[in-house]
This record gives sequence, C-alpha cells and structure tokens, in this order.
Amino acid sequence: MLRGRWLLPGASLALGAGLGAALAARRRGEAGGGRGGLLGRLPVVPVLAAAAPPLPAGSGRAELAKYGLPGLAQLRSRESYVLCYDPRSRSALWVIEQLNRDTLHGASDRAACDFQEDDSVHEYHRATNADYRGSGFDRGHLAAAANHKWSQKAMRDTFYLSNVAPQVPHLNQNAWNNLEKYCRSLARNNKNVYVCTGPLFLPRMEADGKMYVKYQVIGKNHVAVPTHFFKVVILEKESGEIELRSYVMPNSPVDEHIPLERFLVPIESIERASGLLFVPNILKKTNNLKAITAGNKH
Amino acid sequence: MLRGRWLLPGASLALGAGLGAALAARRRGEAGGGRGGLLGRLPVVPVLAAAAPPLPAGSGRAELAKYGLPGLAQLRSRESYVLCYDPRSRSALWVIEQLNRDTLHGASDRAACDFQEDDSVHEYHRATNADYRGSGFDRGHLAAAANHKWSQKAMRDTFYLSNVAPQVPHLNQNAWNNLEKYCRSLARNNKNVYVCTGPLFLPRMEADGKMYVKYQVIGKNHVAVPTHFFKVVILEKESGEIELRSYVMPNSPVDEHIPLERFLVPIESIERASGLLFVPNILKKTNNLKAITAGNKH
Repeated sequence: MLRGRWLLPGASLALGAGLGAALAARRRGEAGGGRGGLLGRLPVVPVLAAAAPPLPAGSGRAELAKYGLPGLAQLRSRESYVLCYDPRSRSALWVIEQLNRDTLHGASDRAACDFQEDDSVHEYHRATNADYRGSGFDRGHLAAAANHKWSQKAMRDTFYLSNVAPQVPHLNQNAWNNLEKYCRSLARNNKNVYVCTGPLFLPRMEADGKMYVKYQVIGKNHVAVPTHFFKVVILEKESGEIELRSYVMPNSPVDEHIPLERFLVPIESIERASGLLFVPNILKKTNNLKAITAGNKH
Repeated sequence: MLRGRWLLPGASLALGAGLGAALAARRRGEAGGGRGGLLGRLPVVPVLAAAAPPLPAGSGRAELAKYGLPGLAQLRSRESYVLCYDPRSRSALWVIEQLNRDTLHGASDRAACDFQEDDSVHEYHRATNADYRGSGFDRGHLAAAANHKWSQKAMRDTFYLSNVAPQVPHLNQNAWNNLEKYCRSLARNNKNVYVCTGPLFLPRMEADGKMYVKYQVIGKNHVAVPTHFFKVVILEKESGEIELRSYVMPNSPVDEHIPLERFLVPIESIERASGLLFVPNILKKTNNLKAITAGNKH
C-alpha cells in the first residue's frame, strides 16, 4: 500500500532515491530499504565514492542542515524511463530507457501526445513550451517517443519537457533520428538494450589559447542549449555478452550519410565530460563486457 | 552477506545522504534513520517535489537500473560543512556551514593546512592543484577557512579542492574576503549563522541579441570558472527572528570600498539561477522570516 506512495517520483525525487525510501520506512516504522523498496529493486547501486570517516558523535554538525539542504539529485521514475533532472539547465542530466522486442510494439499514438511542462519540477527551474517557441530549436526527446509504442502512458511520459532539450532541427530530424532508429534495431535483434541519453556542454579553445564552455540559453526560463548529446547503449546479447557503444553528436546539422560508427567515442570521454560513470556499475554485473569503439567495431 | 557488498559508508556520498543513513541503519540492524543517522539529525528535509502516481505493479521498470544509475547527488558531510559536489564542473554546487561564537575561536593554524585533492571524488571528476597552477585564479574557499578556528580538522577540511572554486585573486583577497569577515561578525552578534555558498554561471546577452552562458575551464581536468558567486546567510537572532541575506558578486575584481549591501539580491534570483531552493525549507522552520534586500535593510 504505502509502497505505492513512495515508489515514485514524488518522494524519491528531490530527495534522491534513497532518502525517499528511508523517509517512507520511518513513516512505516520499518527498517530502512526493505525488500519492496527502491533499494530492493536496484540490482546495482550507483558507483560508490571512497568511504569517508563517520561524523564524530556529538560534533553537532547535524545542526548544519537545520534550515534544509538547498538541493539534491532530482530523480524521476516514469513509465518509460528513469531521469535525473538538472534544475540549473532546466533539463535532464541523463535519462535511461530499456528497449526490447516488447517495448517496440503497440498501438500507441504519437498524435495523442503533446509536449507538457513537468510540474513535478519547481516553477523556477522548469522549462515551458513558451521557452522553445520561436527559439529556432526543436524540443528534442532524450528518451525517444518511438521507443515506447508498448504503452500510451509510456509514450506520453516521454513528452515531459524534463525529458527534452533544445536541439538543432536538422540534427533532431536526421542523424540523431537515425541513431534512435539504430537503437531500436539493436533492440529487435538482442535480448535487451539499455539506452542512456543526455546533454553535454563541451569546452573549446578560443583565440586566446584558453578553454571555454559556451552555450545559448533560450526563453524566459533560460533553458540551456547543449553543445553536444551523448547516447550510451548497453546491449545484452542472447549469448549473455554485454556490449557497450557510446556516441556523441554535436548539436548542429550533421550529414546523415556519415555512418553512425563515426560518432562512436570511448566511454571514458563521456564519463569525464558528463560527470557520470557507467563502466564501474556495469562491471559489477558482468565479466563479459566488450566496448565497441570506432577502432574495434565487429 | 550480500548486503555487505554495497552497504558501504561511502554510499552516503554518491547516493545522497538519506540513502547512506538508511544503509547504515541496515548495517546496524536498526530501523531506518534511527537517532544516530543523518536522517534523525535532519530537522528539515529538502523540499519535496510534487508527488507523481506510483509505478504500476509489475511494470518491470525496476529493470531500468539493472546496470546502475550513472550519477546522483554527491553529498559530503565533513567536520565544518555539508557540501553537494558537481562532478561536471569539478567543484561544489553548494556548501553549508554553521557559524557561531564557538566556531570562530580556537588555536587552529592555517599554516598547517594545504589544499588537497578530494579523493572521495572519482579521478575523472576531481580538481587537482595542478589544474590551478599558472591559471591566474586563486583556489577560492567556498566554506572559508577562518570560519573554523574551533578545530584543526574542521579547518583542514575546508582545504579540500571540492570546497574550492577558481576565483579571481583580487576578488578573493578583497571584497569577497570582506563578505566572509562580515559573516563572522554576524556570528559574533547573533545566536547562529548558517552560510550557504556556491558558484553561479549566469547568462549574458551578446551582440546577436541572444543569451549565452560562457565560462572558462582550467587545467587538464577542466575545472569550471564560475561567472559569479553567491552567499546565502540565514541569521538566527537571539530574539528567535530569522533573517535572510543573499549576496551575489561577480568573479572579477570588485572595489572593496563598495558597501556590501550593494551586493544584496532577492533570494529568488539566486534560487532561479542556481537551481537551488532555500525559502521553502526555511519557512518550514519559522513564521518569522525577514528577508533583507538592498531596499529594506534595517
């Protein structure tokens, strides 16, 4: 019962998944993170940082949080994806989907979906349709709508503006669309495909020899326009082998005749630039990981 | 047994404080968030986002996290502060300290402190002293060293590069230093002062009429140079009244003769730009909040 109440965005969100779980456990008077909780459902927990010494008893540092903590990871767990929101950029840090033969088929109708504000995000930090209007950018899905024909709700959930970033129309409608289609073809021919998508804000050297990150922000809410997008594809083969393919495309017109494999990059470069980690988690699940890069494609 | 694998103290970090507490409670066999845990010590939890409908039972979305989640809030709870790390910028999103008469005094020696890498952060996402060398920027403390004379360890903890951001030397050594001194003077004359400090990356209009965020990154690890810094000061008066003062300074030379009150800004502008929220949490603790801005200073 209660489980229903907190296995969900609402609590997990602004608090970070675990805190939500722990609070719910307190509410129930149970031990934290019981079998039914999000913890029980996570076969792999996120990468652990190095251990730090516990707070000395009576140090009184608890008082630090008397007036709350101003921000923590904002997770959204929806029908079609899990998303981590970045309130500063008004979009996602990353979105994970699971694709397989079952999720690709169904009668869901894209025409019945409209882009909508994510009202689970505070209004200060939320993108609106008005922000995109006249900006020259498409509302580019991170988790793609066409990946989720299996459920109308799953498809509709991809239309939250938290799952969207400003994308150059030519890219959105051509090369990036081809990459999404390719992910679906992988899903048809393998056991499962996990796709993690997100924005990048990459630095460039300018004339003064220094490195700068520069990106446009659009609309009244200053929605950040990524300089690039990444897609990390974790492929579960029928054989049990796990294959990793990681792509980066610039947020600019890309000739759709360039083979997709030309956009393969070492996963490390995405991990460094995004502030995220993929490989340590995957290695907890398999000893049979093959990373596909431009140099070693099969 | 199996629990042992992931119930590490480090978990609290990468996972968010609450999860850490829940995990620790499990380890101890206690109810979640027991008296000793961080939860038990948090009188106010962070702002809740609006609740969303629960996941349908058996929807299998748990599978989404099979290979882990690539990133979540990275909290560090140290002797002198609680900090939320931003692995993309290689610095903190925010740092909270508590100052009062007790923390300002002591025999701690700044000369015994050296800036040090934070090895609780993955090496891909960590700033090093080498990144700062020759950059033209100071290693600017977020939680200030001089605030924590009460304990050598507390002072030393402020020298982790996770509590540091690249700061223009003139600002660091003059106007910003004066703001830090002012916070200490408030701490001497009031019951408690909570200080939250962090970087801002503010957009500017360029010649094409569009808004852009632009900032330098330094060193091999691309440590982001903030365009501005904020300081939010929550003042607990002896009378019980809570006063809020929020400041923004540009990361550029600032004439130290300009009165500090000229840098007061409405808290809302910091909340919008930083992606953080302060006021909703404070209002859970008091009905007696007075926000001091340039227009209404006492």
